[in-house]
Amino acid sequence: MQAQLEWLKAHDGELVGQLGDLVAIQSISTDGEHQREIDRSADEVCKQMRWAGLENVAILKSGDSNPYAYGEWLGAPGKPTVFLYAHHDVQPVNFVQDWQSDPWKLTERDGRFYGRGAADDKGAITVQLGAIASYLKTVGKLPVNVKMLVEGEEEVGSKNLGAFFQEHKERLQSDIIVVCDTENIETGLPSITYSLRGIVALHVEVQSATKPVHSGMAGGMLADAALALNVILSRLYWKNGKLPIPGFYKKVRKLTAKEKRAFRKLPGNNKTWRRDLGVLKGVQFSLKKGVHPHEQTWRLPAVTVIAQEASSIKGASNQVLPKAEAIVSCRIVPDQDPGKVGKQLTRFLTEGPPWDVK
Amino acid sequence: MQAQLEWLKAHDGELVGQLGDLVAIQSISTDGEHQREIDRSADEVCKQMRWAGLENVAILKSGDSNPYAYGEWLGAPGKPTVFLYAHHDVQPVNFVQDWQSDPWKLTERDGRFYGRGAADDKGAITVQLGAIASYLKTVGKLPVNVKMLVEGEEEVGSKNLGAFFQEHKERLQSDIIVVCDTENIETGLPSITYSLRGIVALHVEVQSATKPVHSGMAGGMLADAALALNVILSRLYWKNGKLPIPGFYKKVRKLTAKEKRAFRKLPGNNKTWRRDLGVLKGVQFSLKKGVHPHEQTWRLPAVTVIAQEASSIKGASNQVLPKAEAIVSCRIVPDQDPGKVGKQLTRFLTEGPPWDVK
Repeated sequence: MQAQLEWLKAHDGELVGQLGDLVAIQSISTDGEHQREIDRSADEVCKQMRWAGLENVAILKSGDSNPYAYGEWLGAPGKPTVFLYAHHDVQPVNFVQDWQSDPWKLTERDGRFYGRGAADDKGAITVQLGAIASYLKTVGKLPVNVKMLVEGEEEVGSKNLGAFFQEHKERLQSDIIVVCDTENIETGLPSITYSLRGIVALHVEVQSATKPVHSGMAGGMLADAALALNVILSRLYWKNGKLPIPGFYKKVRKLTAKEKRAFRKLPGNNKTWRRDLGVLKGVQFSLKKGVHPHEQTWRLPAVTVIAQEASSIKGASNQVLPKAEAIVSCRIVPDQDPGKVGKQLTRFLTEGPPWDVK
Repeated sequence: MQAQLEWLKAHDGELVGQLGDLVAIQSISTDGEHQREIDRSADEVCKQMRWAGLENVAILKSGDSNPYAYGEWLGAPGKPTVFLYAHHDVQPVNFVQDWQSDPWKLTERDGRFYGRGAADDKGAITVQLGAIASYLKTVGKLPVNVKMLVEGEEEVGSKNLGAFFQEHKERLQSDIIVVCDTENIETGLPSITYSLRGIVALHVEVQSATKPVHSGMAGGMLADAALALNVILSRLYWKNGKLPIPGFYKKVRKLTAKEKRAFRKLPGNNKTWRRDLGVLKGVQFSLKKGVHPHEQTWRLPAVTVIAQEASSIKGASNQVLPKAEAIVSCRIVPDQDPGKVGKQLTRFLTEGPPWDVK
């Protein structure tokens, strides 16, 4: 691999320039106002794919999806096919006053590069194409077949991704998938993510009556939908134990002893975890006793109330509320079936509601 | 009282016309955009007070309050002084498409009058002034002294009312207060409200960390502030018993046997209460077993979650929330001390929070 490494060293400036070209395009997908820039960033990715030596480079779509940039190199018959995933859309620039440099200009500071989307996920595009180019431009071939897909709507939930895979099934068929949109455990420590938690979300809505009623007139008599929702969601409280949902852990794949040892060898301690998560002084973690943070956040399911609304603080008036709602989001882990988890959770939350609210 | 009743019959049209003049003024106090109309309705009330024969009629204010219309008749020395209260501001017109006639035009339908503010609370002004006029315009005097105050910011919480009473203490000094902003138990059945519940409101805020963290990265580890708030508020759940707040009922004045009998004699049954409150089929009342609805809503305290927010349903993203808040509103009854109730409730809600959240 000496030749490839030397090529990379020699072309470092060129690769950084390419990342800079990607970062300069404001491919924000969350506000629906940057479609032209998203088209441009897909085109730029295609251009860089061609430069790296990929073939059959094309913009693909599914329905009214944002453009996916696709390229492949299939010159290694009999060898496995590796599927590379990344995305070229980015989050908006919030808190612009907190940026130390122009978010749309890749800027070096203390040996690191800063810019909107530089880490999430345009850097992955450059890294993948750099690795590909280093082979194709030195020995003229790759040790495996490669199919590379760079999608354009990851930041808005990849809602066309499932249909896209169905539609382009044959073209995308591969042996291994490498998702290059994960994190390093620590700066300077290369990390391989080999397990990701999935997600199941439930919208929980409680209703007791057809209208709000003045609390002076109905307080204590009319079932309080907001309080009923609190009672229902509070059933999820696990303190520092297991989630109390029946059957929930049945399919959870056990950690091997080797994995456990590996997790404990990784850097990080209570102090750094608290600091990284911004935990307030005195507030405890919700980890089950004896469970390592990495085991919890990588390999154990979790339930989070990601939104809740009953009237609003600003619009509050003295009324018994007839309706309240929340979104409960569930992180699932290997071997858990999303459909079954959804059913378990639904049953758990709808059984015996306070005052028989609907 | 024959002369007065005859006078009222003869002047019915005139009184309805005066109510119509009041209803026509869009004295909405909730949006801050109708100050001119509020000034106009205060002036109109003063005009009608003078017409009825009240003396020393004036616009009074306290600080930057909306205008209070004030008038008095003190020609019965040695007799008690009755203080009459009403308000001339109104709620905005929501659901305008559901109105069967112009909200700003007093309209008769099936023997009843409709218009924004006709019942709440402009009708009270006309009724009070009609009664006063019927005496002053027939026998030339009232059987008691009268001080009448019509305020202009009841719909926005009467926030200057306390200071107003302090400031105008001497002028307002009276023996009896009659609040004409209450309800009839049934159409056509005159009702005297002799007990009103007060209110104590708490803003409950829970915080676990300084920022939201992606639920894939922290779910199950970082204390979920939204869930913690659910656990805290769920402690209030009384099912069909008493509120579980220690000491909460200690000072509550007991109903006398006479009151109990009187409550049970009033019209209304389960069916009409359910219909009036719009209760969904199958949903139960939250009344304590054996407690009559009137006893609960007139003479027993209650706690209501009148608002709750943790992110918003629309803005939900997959994050463990570091903060959640709610407003808990408490109805208090005779002999309960608002300060003590506030303390009891605060203690109850802040003791031993889940994961020691703040």
